[in-house]
Amino acid sequence: MTTANPHPGVAVPALLERGRALTAPALRDAVGRLAAPMDTVAAYHFGWIDAQGRPAEQDSGKAVRPALALLSAEAAGAPPATGVPGAVAVELVHNFSLLHDDLMDGDEQRRHRDTVWKVHGPAQAILVGDALFALANEIILNAGEAGPRAARRLATASRRLVDGQAQDLAFEHRERVSVAECLEMEGNKTGALLACAASIGAVLGGAEDALADALEVYGHHLGLAFQAVDDVLGVWGDPATTGKRTWSDLRQRKKSLPVVAALAAPGPAAERLTALLTADAKKSPEEFDDFDEAEFAARAALIEEAGGRAWTEAEARRQYDAAVAALDTVPMPAGVREGLAALADFVVVRKK
Amino acid sequence: MTTANPHPGVAVPALLERGRALTAPALRDAVGRLAAPMDTVAAYHFGWIDAQGRPAEQDSGKAVRPALALLSAEAAGAPPATGVPGAVAVELVHNFSLLHDDLMDGDEQRRHRDTVWKVHGPAQAILVGDALFALANEIILNAGEAGPRAARRLATASRRLVDGQAQDLAFEHRERVSVAECLEMEGNKTGALLACAASIGAVLGGAEDALADALEVYGHHLGLAFQAVDDVLGVWGDPATTGKRTWSDLRQRKKSLPVVAALAAPGPAAERLTALLTADAKKSPEEFDDFDEAEFAARAALIEEAGGRAWTEAEARRQYDAAVAALDTVPMPAGVREGLAALADFVVVRKK
Repeated sequence: MTTANPHPGVAVPALLERGRALTAPALRDAVGRLAAPMDTVAAYHFGWIDAQGRPAEQDSGKAVRPALALLSAEAAGAPPATGVPGAVAVELVHNFSLLHDDLMDGDEQRRHRDTVWKVHGPAQAILVGDALFALANEIILNAGEAGPRAARRLATASRRLVDGQAQDLAFEHRERVSVAECLEMEGNKTGALLACAASIGAVLGGAEDALADALEVYGHHLGLAFQAVDDVLGVWGDPATTGKRTWSDLRQRKKSLPVVAALAAPGPAAERLTALLTADAKKSPEEFDDFDEAEFAARAALIEEAGGRAWTEAEARRQYDAAVAALDTVPMPAGVREGLAALADFVVVRKK
Repeated sequence: MTTANPHPGVAVPALLERGRALTAPALRDAVGRLAAPMDTVAAYHFGWIDAQGRPAEQDSGKAVRPALALLSAEAAGAPPATGVPGAVAVELVHNFSLLHDDLMDGDEQRRHRDTVWKVHGPAQAILVGDALFALANEIILNAGEAGPRAARRLATASRRLVDGQAQDLAFEHRERVSVAECLEMEGNKTGALLACAASIGAVLGGAEDALADALEVYGHHLGLAFQAVDDVLGVWGDPATTGKRTWSDLRQRKKSLPVVAALAAPGPAAERLTALLTADAKKSPEEFDDFDEAEFAARAALIEEAGGRAWTEAEARRQYDAAVAALDTVPMPAGVREGLAALADFVVVRKK
């Protein structure tokens, strides 16, 4: 959406790399404490080993959350390392939800490799998810004096994360989902944990509630911006870049933002889309799998024609603006504010 | 094992009923806050409604944990109600583990009715389990000033609970399991959460660590006594009382205490048992299902002949003694000590 980096002084890759580098040892240490074979299964999930147990260095995700947690500590005037237990706990909760969601959704691939339930079976996916969640609580509670305050924010975010997944699953079985419902679901499923990542470092750094709350608002809007971009990429993303199939979300019949926004719009495109998707909903997964590219392309074109794409792109921009505006409501070091704004920028301009 | 109640002044049913009565409203309130349809699924799991959503009053379990948590508060000189958030959190964690374990183990029945994954599907069993775990953390962290201390004990117990389930699953795929390994697994799977229930009320009541730790030791041994009794009932329990099939644990090829103790014993009975179980392990579930009563009865007789039953019954008694002895290491009101001892008694003499 933006074409040039408006924060030329801030190197986002360096912020992400710092987050990864500072968080990785503590994360590996925590996961290494799990009872066998959960330690191995978790190491596979994180991309540290392959399915045969050989050391690997896989794509471990964008690492936006750890970068946020460290900047968050700096926003409170603490060294970035103060945010590490928060970064680790948030990563553990995020990965707990990935393990369980992949199983619930029947997703066979994540980050270009087979998901845990495909490789190690459903029981291990459930169990290791539970273990990561339990570890997250233990780690954050023992993160010094401010640990309990941080734990409270993490607990609420975790509960909202589960609520969001429940809503997402429930939407699959419903004919109509409103834009407001979709935004509420995404606020729970994506916003809550990013809000926690953005505020937990500050809490650990001894920040007052006003600063932590402002950072939480920033993270909440950042999460919604992130998800709006994700929803656009889920339909129109380039498979070579995203690692997903073409029209990925349409194949999964997801009621994502572009779809619900298009369906809610007036006009003939929305009407034709409604008729098509209503018919689609009655098809079996097998019939649906037989669709060719042109049929998905036709649906994507109707969504675009009805304004679903433009609305979602504008929504990403609105959420981005709200995120950055939240940073201006509280004092923090200028470099940290720049870094947080640059991360928000990175999130909305990304292609995968 | 004991034939007369050695604590004639203490009415165990009244202690259990008090635990249920004080805990139920807070538990229902917490579960009612879950996003739909998780509130309904959880209400089914707890036995408050039937599969069609009609109000029901099902057997909701023995409620030993809530009774313990309230006595625990009284041990610290606090009113029983002080232990309620602890009782609720422990119940939520316990039921999170039941929901997930039933799915992982493929168990279709619990408390004489279909398990959640059978009625509402695997995704809801995973999701509602996650939600109960998340709720438990939120509730205990917000349980006043001592909440964080209580939360630390609950977090460790939860992590050990998951470790125990991992060990239990791993044992299924192993030819030999030692008695020590079995005890370690049971300490994690059953001991840790009972230890938490027995100490969390005291922590919430402002107890010093010495009292909470002693209560934790009591609960740990109580858990191991409980599990030893469970393992005996799992082979020789009366189906009319337990609600399970005859030879239930043998049908599941569980490496429970009587089995591992028998296999570890010297002599011809253990040798014959080893040969039989080694052959059993190679059978498919279908072949195994075709076994008639006499074949299970023969295995049970060999376990008994090799001393597996006597050893496990003696172990229950040893753990009971250790539990009660732990109570004598710290000062607490005499009536509370009597109540805790009576509950331990109830656990080892129960028939279901």
